[in-house]
Amino acid sequence: MTTEITTDVVVIGAGPCGLFAAFELGLLDLKCHFIDILDRPGGQCAELYPEKPIYDIPGFPVVTGQQLTDNLMAQIAPFAPEFHFNRMINTIEKQADGSFKLATDADEVFHTKVVVIAAGGGSFQPKRPPVDGIEAFENKSVFYSVRKMDDFRGQDVVIVGGGDSALDWTLNLQPIVRSLTLVHRRAVFKAAPASVNKMQELVGEGKINFLTGQIAKLDGENGQINHVHLTTDAGDLSVPATRLLPFFGLTMKLGPVADWGLELNDNTIVVDTEKFETSVPGIFAIGDINSYPGKLKLILSGFHEAALMAQAAKKIVSPDERVVFQYTTSSTKLQKKLGVA
Amino acid sequence: MTTEITTDVVVIGAGPCGLFAAFELGLLDLKCHFIDILDRPGGQCAELYPEKPIYDIPGFPVVTGQQLTDNLMAQIAPFAPEFHFNRMINTIEKQADGSFKLATDADEVFHTKVVVIAAGGGSFQPKRPPVDGIEAFENKSVFYSVRKMDDFRGQDVVIVGGGDSALDWTLNLQPIVRSLTLVHRRAVFKAAPASVNKMQELVGEGKINFLTGQIAKLDGENGQINHVHLTTDAGDLSVPATRLLPFFGLTMKLGPVADWGLELNDNTIVVDTEKFETSVPGIFAIGDINSYPGKLKLILSGFHEAALMAQAAKKIVSPDERVVFQYTTSSTKLQKKLGVA
Repeated sequence: MTTEITTDVVVIGAGPCGLFAAFELGLLDLKCHFIDILDRPGGQCAELYPEKPIYDIPGFPVVTGQQLTDNLMAQIAPFAPEFHFNRMINTIEKQADGSFKLATDADEVFHTKVVVIAAGGGSFQPKRPPVDGIEAFENKSVFYSVRKMDDFRGQDVVIVGGGDSALDWTLNLQPIVRSLTLVHRRAVFKAAPASVNKMQELVGEGKINFLTGQIAKLDGENGQINHVHLTTDAGDLSVPATRLLPFFGLTMKLGPVADWGLELNDNTIVVDTEKFETSVPGIFAIGDINSYPGKLKLILSGFHEAALMAQAAKKIVSPDERVVFQYTTSSTKLQKKLGVA
Repeated sequence: MTTEITTDVVVIGAGPCGLFAAFELGLLDLKCHFIDILDRPGGQCAELYPEKPIYDIPGFPVVTGQQLTDNLMAQIAPFAPEFHFNRMINTIEKQADGSFKLATDADEVFHTKVVVIAAGGGSFQPKRPPVDGIEAFENKSVFYSVRKMDDFRGQDVVIVGGGDSALDWTLNLQPIVRSLTLVHRRAVFKAAPASVNKMQELVGEGKINFLTGQIAKLDGENGQINHVHLTTDAGDLSVPATRLLPFFGLTMKLGPVADWGLELNDNTIVVDTEKFETSVPGIFAIGDINSYPGKLKLILSGFHEAALMAQAAKKIVSPDERVVFQYTTSSTKLQKKLGVA
């Protein structure tokens, strides 16, 4: 049965820029719903580098993607935005009254006056290694990212790949695993030289294994692997393993957004710098997915874009309301909305 | 004697946006010097509301102006920017080679390729008490701030005001003056209770005088006062005085910036949204002092403006260097600059 939802704003993508948009929209009394293809908030921050430090968020000498996400969730909590995870948008249709109708692959229809695309690099998915039957082990013993390091504690881990993710997680997990084998198709890496050197030191000390080769087959049952079979230059090998982390990169696709009739530029959505509105009035784009002269793909820029977008969204939702710009530091009215006055 | 300083970038104003500019400039290997009229970093945040909570800095559900300032100082520390406080810029001249020469009222000359105006609401200027002819004594025997305590040694000092500045300087100068009289229009103070208690102790010990009243008139010649006439509840009084320190608060004015030939709009500096450059190439303006379509006077917007400005500044300082945009999360090169790799 189709679920019908009516709201002021639908934000597509619950990464840091999208999340902060809920704050700026909330200050202006706009209600918002999030739709995200992932299973939780944070976008790339939570998916690609939840535990990796970020150094360029203003006011944080260092913060991890997960901490930033948690902080933003706390900051927007007073506005109680609603989240719809694990969803793709199938269609978006402009209605005669200027509003939009969005249909998701979870049989929901959203009726909204404003759409904010905050989808980062688009929909992204880890590339799956070409190994028969790997799907059966995914999210049980085969993972494409490290969500909780503790899931790897005391395990026999095989990491496959030669880029920064593979090397970084080799170095980060080594101290807590029972055994760790790094597998790459050749002994040349596309990773920071310092990480490669450190990895080679650990190999020299006998703390990890490195093999040149490729995964051929997985053994195991009920989603739990027990051996990884490899094809190596030295012949076929079978490595005991309870966890497999293949880092074959991510495919980012603009996805259905590409078909929405928005002006695009090199897989990004063209916006103005006054409202961050796309070529379709009422549809805005903020964060990594947009482009304009000078654009930098920085989280801090998405925050700015969210603030200016919110002012324009307010004019669409409440065209007759006169909005006086106020500061959270001095406005008791805003502080009441935030639950602190 | 004039001090000559050569640098890549001079940032005018050490408020949060200016401070964060040092981070973005530092990532690009640009060296910067700060000039600020205040006596410490933080700008309005530290001067006007150091302990007041701010709710709209992304990632901070709540932060005080002082905490934000402290965090930003820690974040830019790896780049060791240099600070010149208690300074006003007297003149700014474009040189034949496109660089700038800035002269301060502290007898310094800065030679710089790039100027970034991050002066918030403009220069903080002390409010002048409504006393006829006071201008003639200013900066000779009437001062609105204490730059060198030695100027007050052995003097007969009258301090007027009831806030923290008045109380702090009463306590700090008392040990070195010949006599000190604190004047406030009533016996109620807007200052730290501990300072008020200490002041009252000194009054009790006969080390300073306190009078409730207001300044009516100044006597003196050639810029040197000799008596301050007061209207008090107990009648008119004349106090012998060689120094007067009125602390009537601060007001904000665009100040000398207004005379630099930059295109202005309603007391703000017009910039583009690609580089945040003013109408004079090489001079940028970020934060509350600039204007462009959609502008909101939010700290978070100043952070974005700082990041885009830095890219443009780099092109001016190193026109032949090819800059590859990198992320602090993944670039070992940037992490080395930050001292974390």
